[in-house]
Amino acid sequence: MATLVLLRHGESVWNAEGLFTGWVDVDLSAAGEEEARRGGRLLREADLSPSVVHTSVLKRATRTANLALDEADLTWLPVRRSWRLNERHYGALQGKNKAQTREEYGEDQFMVWRRSYDTPPPQIADGDPHSQVGDRRYAQLPSELMPRTECLADVVDRMLPYWYDTIVPDLSEGRTVLVAAHGNSLRALVKHLDGVDPETIAGLNIPTGIPLVYDLDEDFSPRKPGGEYLDPEAAKEAIEAVKNQGKK
Amino acid sequence: MATLVLLRHGESVWNAEGLFTGWVDVDLSAAGEEEARRGGRLLREADLSPSVVHTSVLKRATRTANLALDEADLTWLPVRRSWRLNERHYGALQGKNKAQTREEYGEDQFMVWRRSYDTPPPQIADGDPHSQVGDRRYAQLPSELMPRTECLADVVDRMLPYWYDTIVPDLSEGRTVLVAAHGNSLRALVKHLDGVDPETIAGLNIPTGIPLVYDLDEDFSPRKPGGEYLDPEAAKEAIEAVKNQGKK
Repeated sequence: MATLVLLRHGESVWNAEGLFTGWVDVDLSAAGEEEARRGGRLLREADLSPSVVHTSVLKRATRTANLALDEADLTWLPVRRSWRLNERHYGALQGKNKAQTREEYGEDQFMVWRRSYDTPPPQIADGDPHSQVGDRRYAQLPSELMPRTECLADVVDRMLPYWYDTIVPDLSEGRTVLVAAHGNSLRALVKHLDGVDPETIAGLNIPTGIPLVYDLDEDFSPRKPGGEYLDPEAAKEAIEAVKNQGKK
Repeated sequence: MATLVLLRHGESVWNAEGLFTGWVDVDLSAAGEEEARRGGRLLREADLSPSVVHTSVLKRATRTANLALDEADLTWLPVRRSWRLNERHYGALQGKNKAQTREEYGEDQFMVWRRSYDTPPPQIADGDPHSQVGDRRYAQLPSELMPRTECLADVVDRMLPYWYDTIVPDLSEGRTVLVAAHGNSLRALVKHLDGVDPETIAGLNIPTGIPLVYDLDEDFSPRKPGGEYLDPEAAKEAIEAVKNQGKK
């Protein structure tokens, strides 16, 4: 009945520089902007016309949505934003170099922080220059709700209320909904939609800038597990590239 | 208490070509994009941080908002859109060349259509290529609400419900609200705010891309009639330029 389209933001400046980003509000790189536009072109070519778009409150997602909707001639769409769609908070690792972190703490600890389902990195201190405590956009979050670090399980927990209370109502009446967000908030959503177990989700990567389309049944469950990428060949290549990166 | 910031979109492709635009969804020209960015820079330099932005559903306004918020680093703001903030519907004149229309119908008729408060141009036919009947973004407008032509009085009538029901609640609690819209929907709002009479509003022009700031009292009335432009010199020049254009 309804159609859900997931779009992961393109490369950010810190992705390109190999830094942990999390909730730090880093902008898209020029390559990331082009990925966002490609996402919009794919939507247009597939004749997929969302009725509404949801984004996180981080500019690499808001700008990805804006650029994609520019390309798809859909800038008039209603937009909703929520911190619940933000990237995973990377705790004390935010702003740190990935390669240096791997050297400093060793491969095992590094991979636990990156990929374990329920072990978060150390908390960020409130006074850390890469903390978001005090950022005006989170002013309405009570302190206990404001993350200082997150594992993927935490992301699932804080994302699901938004899925149930805001996205699902938008999907009702058979509408098409676009969600422009992040690697981990989208993995959290895919985990929920496809019922992926914690071990399997660790190995699941969503490529940037390629819309992932789920046709949902009347219970808002995928008709086809895993959905379908609008450019399956490009998605496959991107997923392989990430896997090989991990093997280095 | 509250602060209202009005931003008229920059030059569109049809502005540059001298065509009547109205509800036709024409994009910004390169100059118009730069005007939008300037608007964002002026907001940032004035340290004006809106809590929410309202736009029409026409891309020259949505894109002006996006570009200005990019510059002001505010892409995370909640966004609301409504057809009630659209430009005046120009009826059968939409898509027509202004100079040719002036020649064909004479200066008097031309000025009545452009500037009279309560005489609309002839209605556009539903099958006209420049009609918006059937456009998906207006699918939820009952036929009797969908304009076929409008004078400024009509714009005031259809804009005011949005002012009272959506913008005013956003202004409550002393917040700052940005409205990115069009020459005539903003003139309609200014007419209401400043209590301008129908004769005077005909001569009132709002320059493009320069934020106009109103400090409002507890009754949502301007503390200073006419508000203040963030770049008063540039605004004055732009207003003079428009006046002289009219005299040619």
